[in-house]
Amino acid sequence: MLLQDNLQEVKEGRRITAKGYAVNHKNDTFKPFLFSRHALGENDILIEILFAGICHSDIHSARSEWRQGIYPMVPGHEIAGKVVAVGSQVSKFKVGDYAGVGCMVNSCGECEACKRSQEQFCQNAKTIFTYDCKDCFHDNEPTYGGYSNNIVVHEKFAVNVPQNAPLEKVAPLLCAGITTYSPLKFSGVKKGDKVAVAGFGGLGVMAMKYALQMGAEVSVFARNDKKRDEAIQLGAKALYVSTQECKERFNFLISTIPTGYDVNSYIDLLEFGGEMAIVGLPPVELKTHIDLTRLVFAAGKKVYGSLIGGMKETQEMLDFSLKHRIYPETEIIGVNDINQAYENLTNGKAKFRYVIDMASLQN
Amino acid sequence: MLLQDNLQEVKEGRRITAKGYAVNHKNDTFKPFLFSRHALGENDILIEILFAGICHSDIHSARSEWRQGIYPMVPGHEIAGKVVAVGSQVSKFKVGDYAGVGCMVNSCGECEACKRSQEQFCQNAKTIFTYDCKDCFHDNEPTYGGYSNNIVVHEKFAVNVPQNAPLEKVAPLLCAGITTYSPLKFSGVKKGDKVAVAGFGGLGVMAMKYALQMGAEVSVFARNDKKRDEAIQLGAKALYVSTQECKERFNFLISTIPTGYDVNSYIDLLEFGGEMAIVGLPPVELKTHIDLTRLVFAAGKKVYGSLIGGMKETQEMLDFSLKHRIYPETEIIGVNDINQAYENLTNGKAKFRYVIDMASLQN
Repeated sequence: MLLQDNLQEVKEGRRITAKGYAVNHKNDTFKPFLFSRHALGENDILIEILFAGICHSDIHSARSEWRQGIYPMVPGHEIAGKVVAVGSQVSKFKVGDYAGVGCMVNSCGECEACKRSQEQFCQNAKTIFTYDCKDCFHDNEPTYGGYSNNIVVHEKFAVNVPQNAPLEKVAPLLCAGITTYSPLKFSGVKKGDKVAVAGFGGLGVMAMKYALQMGAEVSVFARNDKKRDEAIQLGAKALYVSTQECKERFNFLISTIPTGYDVNSYIDLLEFGGEMAIVGLPPVELKTHIDLTRLVFAAGKKVYGSLIGGMKETQEMLDFSLKHRIYPETEIIGVNDINQAYENLTNGKAKFRYVIDMASLQN
Repeated sequence: MLLQDNLQEVKEGRRITAKGYAVNHKNDTFKPFLFSRHALGENDILIEILFAGICHSDIHSARSEWRQGIYPMVPGHEIAGKVVAVGSQVSKFKVGDYAGVGCMVNSCGECEACKRSQEQFCQNAKTIFTYDCKDCFHDNEPTYGGYSNNIVVHEKFAVNVPQNAPLEKVAPLLCAGITTYSPLKFSGVKKGDKVAVAGFGGLGVMAMKYALQMGAEVSVFARNDKKRDEAIQLGAKALYVSTQECKERFNFLISTIPTGYDVNSYIDLLEFGGEMAIVGLPPVELKTHIDLTRLVFAAGKKVYGSLIGGMKETQEMLDFSLKHRIYPETEIIGVNDINQAYENLTNGKAKFRYVIDMASLQN
């Protein structure tokens, strides 16, 4: 809700003021934006946002590249901050705790998917995404994300972050971390497995770090060899720039490739019984596909898609990451740098994950 | 080898005479054909063929629909018969035993795939298929299949068939049986699972029978409802004529569909963690494929291809089938009926699996 539309409600304590950075249409640049959020329900917490990561899907959304966006749009679903207020029934958090929020802020809580904590697959289609979504639990108000000073969220959709955690590293884990951790666990990657990571950007790096921690041997596929030294230094066995040059066969392969490619050529690199998880989403117009005949002749090699992860697993991922000090490679920026960061990410000039220091919003 | 080219070798016992039915080019009809087979090696057995099933892939091969065939061609890879001679080192069979032969007659035996009895994936590319193949272990002679009175095969590529088994039912198990049994086992189908069978022809019926025996609840997808009564009578819970009308979700789905279709619409019917095995092979020119975006949004649903099965598992399948009396629906024909059978199979007029009674070859 725009702030000017809700001043009365804010005065009456039914809404909370917020400030952030928003775009007003798909070709817009980010500008300061004042708005309001719904007040705390009994199960909600209010988080003062300290860091917010910039995910590539923020760019797709802000530019309406997947579907028509809801504007003004405040992106951001990699959020870390401090709890500054809690509802009367909140049990997981107290004021002063640190908390993280990822891609979702609510779901029905009653269907089979929600009950097994796969809220991203809510069978009643009530998964509320952190921004660019209508919140059916709050009069269909649009959701606003993490490029802002605060957020109100049901405690079930916030993860516990210990006081000593590096918050600027925690933020990107809430999307880049869980998206790669979840399929590695789903496929049961274990000590001695041979793992391949296709696409070596923000997600690929995390996938490699997790797989190494799980005891796997990891090889990397990238579009060119610019990151070879970095990959080897981080623990990769090899970096390939094409599937043809690779003579290895893998138990598990995760593709984070965000553009069109020959999927079957990666499936062919699996061992019998091996699995390929796809988390990268090429633009729809490229019609990227798997050829059925080639899949049948690559018999016994399983392929599936994976989409972030549920809240229970997100907490597990965070605990695992902190325990083993598995962090994204990050670069801290201020709110005034968001537009430049988008340009760098679009032009492939960004090496690391950009994380916005929200202290810069005060200036 | 054509018989007239090898009379001297036959006289000297280095080759064995055989008679069968062959086509001489892709538009030909089947006619009697005299030829020779290599004599018994020390690990080989000579089988007098009693029954040979007609598989739909025989038609594809005879008509060069997948690739240019080797002519004259004697198809047939669903073979059951009696052992009439054994090589000096043979241990699995003695004269008088019954034996079955499926899609393969040899492989390297030394690679990792062969060692784990997945001879169909021989990593040295030495899988010798039962017909329409060059046999690198025998001077690259062409292989001739089961539409004939005898076959010589390495004992590792023949399965043991008990004396009381119904041989005319055993023959089709060697392809239709193993092709469906193998993925059901690979995906670990068990009691209480919900299974779907897409395509209700010769393979679909077998898949349903095995899944029911494994304790699953089975639903069927067919192009029309002509076989509804038959499906229900055989134990199906439901028969659907489209994916849209189906509100069930499945742990396992096997597609035997041999023509183009919307694969993603079946993947969408899986439960989270469910698996879809594809054994039907649509004509290449239809470019049947899986859309990647739809696969990613159908997260956590695995899809893979499956290709017959190895020799160890083929024996296991046969033992399982005989123990539980799981048999194909068959219709016995004579050698003179082969051409009509091909026409019926092509026109969708064949209801059952045709099995040739080789006694008719004597007439």
